[in-house]
Amino acid sequence: MNRLVIIILILIVGVTNLKAEDGYQLWLRNRTHTNVKVSTNLSSNTINLAINELKNGWSGDENTIVKLSLSKNAKLKDDGFSINENTIIAKTEIGLLYGVYEMLRLQYLAKPLRNVVSNPSYQLRILNHWDNLDGSIERGYAGNSIFWMGKDGLEFTPDAIARWTDYARANASIGINGTVLNNVNASAKVLSRAHLEKVRKIAETIAPYGLKTYLSVNFSSPVLIGGLKTADPLNPEVRLWWKNKVAEIYKLIPNFGGFLVKANSEGQPGPQDFGRTHVDGANMMAEALSPFNGIVMWRAFVYNPTPEDRTKQAYKEFLPLDGKFKDNVIVQVKNGPLDFQPREPFSPLFGAMRQTPIMPELQITQEYLGWSKQLVYLSPMWEECLQSDTFRDGKGSTVAACTDGTLQKAKFTAIAGVANIGADQNWTGHTFAQANWYAFGRLAWNNSLNSEVIADEWIKQTFLDKKKSTNADVVKLIKDIMMDSREAAVNYMMPLGLHHLFAEGHHYGPAPWFTNPKIRPDWTSVYYHKADSIGLGYNRSTTGSNAVEQYNEPLRSTLNNINTCPEEYLLWFHHVPWNYQLKSGNDLWTELCIRYDNGLQQVRGFQKNWDRLQQTIDNDRFTEVQSKLRTQCRDAQIWKDACLLYFQKFSKRDIPFTIERPVHDLDAIVELTKSADYH
Amino acid sequence: MNRLVIIILILIVGVTNLKAEDGYQLWLRNRTHTNVKVSTNLSSNTINLAINELKNGWSGDENTIVKLSLSKNAKLKDDGFSINENTIIAKTEIGLLYGVYEMLRLQYLAKPLRNVVSNPSYQLRILNHWDNLDGSIERGYAGNSIFWMGKDGLEFTPDAIARWTDYARANASIGINGTVLNNVNASAKVLSRAHLEKVRKIAETIAPYGLKTYLSVNFSSPVLIGGLKTADPLNPEVRLWWKNKVAEIYKLIPNFGGFLVKANSEGQPGPQDFGRTHVDGANMMAEALSPFNGIVMWRAFVYNPTPEDRTKQAYKEFLPLDGKFKDNVIVQVKNGPLDFQPREPFSPLFGAMRQTPIMPELQITQEYLGWSKQLVYLSPMWEECLQSDTFRDGKGSTVAACTDGTLQKAKFTAIAGVANIGADQNWTGHTFAQANWYAFGRLAWNNSLNSEVIADEWIKQTFLDKKKSTNADVVKLIKDIMMDSREAAVNYMMPLGLHHLFAEGHHYGPAPWFTNPKIRPDWTSVYYHKADSIGLGYNRSTTGSNAVEQYNEPLRSTLNNINTCPEEYLLWFHHVPWNYQLKSGNDLWTELCIRYDNGLQQVRGFQKNWDRLQQTIDNDRFTEVQSKLRTQCRDAQIWKDACLLYFQKFSKRDIPFTIERPVHDLDAIVELTKSADYH
Repeated sequence: MNRLVIIILILIVGVTNLKAEDGYQLWLRNRTHTNVKVSTNLSSNTINLAINELKNGWSGDENTIVKLSLSKNAKLKDDGFSINENTIIAKTEIGLLYGVYEMLRLQYLAKPLRNVVSNPSYQLRILNHWDNLDGSIERGYAGNSIFWMGKDGLEFTPDAIARWTDYARANASIGINGTVLNNVNASAKVLSRAHLEKVRKIAETIAPYGLKTYLSVNFSSPVLIGGLKTADPLNPEVRLWWKNKVAEIYKLIPNFGGFLVKANSEGQPGPQDFGRTHVDGANMMAEALSPFNGIVMWRAFVYNPTPEDRTKQAYKEFLPLDGKFKDNVIVQVKNGPLDFQPREPFSPLFGAMRQTPIMPELQITQEYLGWSKQLVYLSPMWEECLQSDTFRDGKGSTVAACTDGTLQKAKFTAIAGVANIGADQNWTGHTFAQANWYAFGRLAWNNSLNSEVIADEWIKQTFLDKKKSTNADVVKLIKDIMMDSREAAVNYMMPLGLHHLFAEGHHYGPAPWFTNPKIRPDWTSVYYHKADSIGLGYNRSTTGSNAVEQYNEPLRSTLNNINTCPEEYLLWFHHVPWNYQLKSGNDLWTELCIRYDNGLQQVRGFQKNWDRLQQTIDNDRFTEVQSKLRTQCRDAQIWKDACLLYFQKFSKRDIPFTIERPVHDLDAIVELTKSADYH
Repeated sequence: MNRLVIIILILIVGVTNLKAEDGYQLWLRNRTHTNVKVSTNLSSNTINLAINELKNGWSGDENTIVKLSLSKNAKLKDDGFSINENTIIAKTEIGLLYGVYEMLRLQYLAKPLRNVVSNPSYQLRILNHWDNLDGSIERGYAGNSIFWMGKDGLEFTPDAIARWTDYARANASIGINGTVLNNVNASAKVLSRAHLEKVRKIAETIAPYGLKTYLSVNFSSPVLIGGLKTADPLNPEVRLWWKNKVAEIYKLIPNFGGFLVKANSEGQPGPQDFGRTHVDGANMMAEALSPFNGIVMWRAFVYNPTPEDRTKQAYKEFLPLDGKFKDNVIVQVKNGPLDFQPREPFSPLFGAMRQTPIMPELQITQEYLGWSKQLVYLSPMWEECLQSDTFRDGKGSTVAACTDGTLQKAKFTAIAGVANIGADQNWTGHTFAQANWYAFGRLAWNNSLNSEVIADEWIKQTFLDKKKSTNADVVKLIKDIMMDSREAAVNYMMPLGLHHLFAEGHHYGPAPWFTNPKIRPDWTSVYYHKADSIGLGYNRSTTGSNAVEQYNEPLRSTLNNINTCPEEYLLWFHHVPWNYQLKSGNDLWTELCIRYDNGLQQVRGFQKNWDRLQQTIDNDRFTEVQSKLRTQCRDAQIWKDACLLYFQKFSKRDIPFTIERPVHDLDAIVELTKSADYH
């Protein structure tokens, strides 16, 4: 060894005893080859993957023989599996692979490997990538697309293929079995032959991990790339075009999954452009896909620039269509009726559509929750939605039960998450954003999982060494941060049911003052908070927009009454006087101030917790998160100051002297959030 | 009244019942004409001013007759006066004017007008303006010069004359009786005929208020504007040039005061350029000024780029000259041995020069104390210096006693303050910076005054209406802020004796990391804090630079011993190990962290106090101060984060988990403070 090498080695060892971690391995760290044996009579790419995972991920007795076998056990459905001691049984090979990941996880978490029977809550567990063909990602905060690169997105390298493989593996390890490769604001070009060839390459690469490939399609594709004069779904030529296109796709990609469609929404083309309905549009595509068992995921995220309360529009437009869709169509509904806000009540469509399958759409990427700059663990938000009771078929009709087939038979069930994945080395920009990808997969598999349990799993796999997996203090410090983080964000961004106070465009910082006569009112902040000298909030009770009518009793009455409406949704449903007394005994203005301040103090608490981990976490990830928490703290203060100083202009009240004073001037924040550099 | 006017009136009244205040009136607000009578047999400009002040400032019984008369009462010296009921007696007319201001002040503060005998501590109470002839002000944070404007600074308008009048009046009201009109880094041009003509105009304007005019002179003036080849003070032509120049000045300005000279300091020319001494230089000028009773104020702020500890140099250079100066020379010494830091021990020259009069130089403008962006009441810092015991002639030999004539006879005594005055409407940029101007005047008049008493006077005159002058809550809230403010600044900038951690050039923000091999070491921060793996601080004990030797016993030994050295000067005199235990029980690192955090929390406390005053203070001044406190809070956080994160690189210790975490990354602050926009 020459001297330089020795010096370098000394430096490396001297700086840290902890292994450098760049986050690329996600929750699949600590893989080393072992001599565990695997016994199976099966042979395929997927089985080979399962065997490799077992050998490299094993942390038990190396003399064990693990058995993998298929069975038609009635307890197992779809991709389900059972684990008993060293035996994994499943209906499908993919089920066996899932069983392997579960076995390794249980082992790593030091949990028993007995009497495990696991079936997925949803048959289709799908990531939506809002990736554009130019490589950019709409609302992506972790670098460019891992799918689309080079001219027209058509290029790829061996590195890219390796990345797709690792992507598929990570998804398989948490049970995700489908992926939509391109943005819902779709370029028609994705259906060109050249692009389909590339899709084929991706689909082939990820298939052994059980991932099906889907595409977002532009409703005007027959015109834009087909040379037709119309995209009218009742036009025979148009229908034929889609049939032929679908046949072309399946010839190239036999296990293709189907289409995701954003139609007649935010400027996207759709059947209404031709006087037709969503049903006409969706069924046309469904007819083309049906022979191949392909599906249509038709988004219900629609709203028009009308005076009607925006949160009511999807329900009004889609409920009349209930039962009219073909059986390979599923309607994809965002968790809340607005747009992925830090807190929304569940979308009333979940409690209304009885004859059409509905799939929840969750947003993993943190468009409205601090991008990849802020630590916000989203699982509690999703759990809150899934466990919300719609009362559709009486008490207990949770969003979960309304969508996972419990309350109605459907040909299939599904759930989607808008991915937070990009080409950054750690995939998600923020180390803790990996937890949201992880949690989406785990909840899609088991929609009754508890967020704290998911956090516990993720923390141990992500931060602890195999040997240290019982380090309770470390896990608790991190878990406390994660479990409080979404409520903290709600507090410093928009507590008590406030929503959409974001700065225009970037949706990162605050702009409750934002209004612009040149754009539709429901794209401004003042439309939503309706602050005035009397109070704050959007009256959606029977005396207001009556959005409450879209909810089932007794929830409707609970929400409608200012005194029974849960306070976390208070300003969503009511215009509340500044001096209205809340359950805390504080009036609205005082409570609002305290909540905003609490949010800031919570982030300060996260900083304290995290800093205590300096000796435990590898330096790279420690400093990355430490630095981002600092940013989050500064930005939480900006949120607090912006909102309190702005709303104070209406309340005309002092900020309670018990809490910290603003450190920013309102005018300065207004300028700051306008600046292109802000965020 | 038309409708619009009515609406506007309603709006104005609705917004505030408080009178708008732009701060121009300083502590001389609430003047209204009264019918009080004044009885005197004197008649002059000054007496007329006194009568007018009485009539407009009177707040007692309007039927009173106030008597003004001169007397040679032995209790009165110089500008002193006595007040008894309605009679003011003084030795001079200026003394009567001072007596009038005192009478009005006592009345306003509701104090008795009986048995008041007041004599000034210093005969000469002088402001130094660091104003350049181009109108800029070195270390000025309140706009351009009120003296120098237009081409070469020669222009003036009736507005300027009015401003000079108001300037003179404000100074007279607190006993200031001299002003140096231009920067100590002096342009020789100020001695040109054209400039002297302008000086005459200023001098004539301010003379009725008792203000004498002085000029800073460039030692090379004979060369620069006199056409001589040398400025050697022993050269007969040079001596003649100065004699003639002085005669010319006195012909134009018979009550001219004299010269202020910065020589052989920071690049300024001086007698050492010709192998002569400070004595040679000063005495040459003194000889020229002597026939007219003019004086020379010769600055001792000298240091050279030698390895010698910079804080020792002035003492070493001047002490050997003690007793050699002519009797119309006074040596002007900064309060501390370095340069107006947030906290310094007193300059050892105060306790050493026995045969040469010394005048303290205090800095009113907040070069190192947050400019006009931060609320820092400097009186406690000056009081700390004036009351420091030098032990020169035994216990009780305070800096005050060493300089005000108590301990040694001198032809005259003096004190100087570097002004914070500019053309801003409120004179000083920050409303609370007015208090520093006020306090300097009051301490120059009476160097045993207590800072809290001065604050009390200033607050009542500045913020309260005549009728509300007993509003104890308001006064207490403001006084608490003021009295804590300097200690807060020390805490968040440089506690425990740290000094000169400022960013290069602007001296506003932190840069403890600052070092630059291209400049002299004593212009960098690392020269002063000497952080290393062992500890922090500059060893000036006998084992180090031995600066302690310049102090008299028993102080020398007290400072020299790490265990007896007052903790506020600990890192000034000692290189202290990180784990050294302080009186609090904390070790150095922990205590340092806590002090920095305390500073930030103190500013947050100021914000709380100030916000409580919203209903009491007029809106303009309320919002100005509120906004500046916000800036101060943000910048205190930057200071704290910068210093702790930087010193942590040496201590390699955790920041105690009891205190708030940094919210900035060190690299980001380093970039920020380099930026031209920062401050």
